[in-house]
Amino acid sequence: MTQNIYDDPGFFAGYSRLRRSIEGLDGMPEWPAMRALVPELKGGRVVDLGCGFGWFCRWARQQGAAEVLGLDVSENMLARARATDPDAAVTYRREDLERLELPAGAFDFAYSALALHYLENLEGLLAQVHRALVPGGRLVASVEHPIYTAPSDPGWVRSAAGREVWPVDRYLDEGPRVTHWLAEGVVKQHRTIGTYAGLLHRAGFTLAHLEEWGPTAAQIAEHPEYAIERERPAFLLFAADR
Amino acid sequence: MTQNIYDDPGFFAGYSRLRRSIEGLDGMPEWPAMRALVPELKGGRVVDLGCGFGWFCRWARQQGAAEVLGLDVSENMLARARATDPDAAVTYRREDLERLELPAGAFDFAYSALALHYLENLEGLLAQVHRALVPGGRLVASVEHPIYTAPSDPGWVRSAAGREVWPVDRYLDEGPRVTHWLAEGVVKQHRTIGTYAGLLHRAGFTLAHLEEWGPTAAQIAEHPEYAIERERPAFLLFAADR
Repeated sequence: MTQNIYDDPGFFAGYSRLRRSIEGLDGMPEWPAMRALVPELKGGRVVDLGCGFGWFCRWARQQGAAEVLGLDVSENMLARARATDPDAAVTYRREDLERLELPAGAFDFAYSALALHYLENLEGLLAQVHRALVPGGRLVASVEHPIYTAPSDPGWVRSAAGREVWPVDRYLDEGPRVTHWLAEGVVKQHRTIGTYAGLLHRAGFTLAHLEEWGPTAAQIAEHPEYAIERERPAFLLFAADR
Repeated sequence: MTQNIYDDPGFFAGYSRLRRSIEGLDGMPEWPAMRALVPELKGGRVVDLGCGFGWFCRWARQQGAAEVLGLDVSENMLARARATDPDAAVTYRREDLERLELPAGAFDFAYSALALHYLENLEGLLAQVHRALVPGGRLVASVEHPIYTAPSDPGWVRSAAGREVWPVDRYLDEGPRVTHWLAEGVVKQHRTIGTYAGLLHRAGFTLAHLEEWGPTAAQIAEHPEYAIERERPAFLLFAADR
């Protein structure tokens, strides 16, 4: 079973105070880049893998999706998602994504924001998602970038020349990484980009887009604190077509 | 015109002393991983983009390739390639890969080892290679990994915890990087993996394999000095199918 850190009271309290938790999609600087990968949703059936507070599920409905299924392991997050703008066409369900079973051909589009790097059995989930999509269906996902997850000691360091640098080590040694972010002992799975591409390929997907995300000049002008994010990517985005 | 650093006397002398220059393919620790991506060459027409001393061209002939074209910008390297085991079925030609024009459908397989990261106009070359391959033809290439090319100051640093770390900065700012490797002022083009994937996609290729290369346990047992290469990847390998 995937670690359910979002139901840790301290983690949940901290997470709830993040800009992305308060402002939703508009509080996610990578959202414009992800949105650009989302196909026409009108009349479509959508599944959100790791739906959190349901921001994307509600947005998908606003775009005209006919049915939306939001899945998450966190009861706390699902409770808040259900309480916000209830909509009979949106179902929120508790699921461990590592053990998920979905009906074949049931969805036109699958979305996942910053959830897949928590899963040990990503291979199993991708097989389920491939099966659950109609031919021509698409999966759009973001994960923490392996440059971000790799280090023994993930945090900026000042170089001898006075620059902020990101200290990469253990990049090729994949597997669990235990970090302290909002709570002690958050477990993530470090995978290289090559491994993500290989898992998608073996699940039957065609990789249509791969993006190492960083803030745009316009975003940095508005939020100068984002500038450092161009030094090393925190997020990896991809679109994979069935 | 691409910088022709291989014809700089100091660079060429240093390069000629590298293990990969003396031992050829067997002196390239990434060769077993690249070889695994090479299709059956028997009776095929092969082009090597940045052929250097011609090690791969000769190997391709040993595998039964009918015709091999080796291209390089360096007269020094081509002279040595031509002088080693002359073979009427192997042609070595001086070309600036940024201005290369190849006939349509003339090759079954294209190969490039550690050359493409020198090119500014990679888009143009990929269009030529796509056009020059038969449908079903494959390009296998290695480039310096963007983690390797990104830093302002590319070199290992000891962390406060006593680990060797690779100081990543400027990762998302693509473009030229001037380094000092065997000679002063070697110019490489830093590109993210996302950009490589996008260039291949737009040229019409399907990315069949993407690998962030590191030495295997067996290679480290034989060459303990390779162990540090697992901390951050130096090479990116890919196979792209037309």
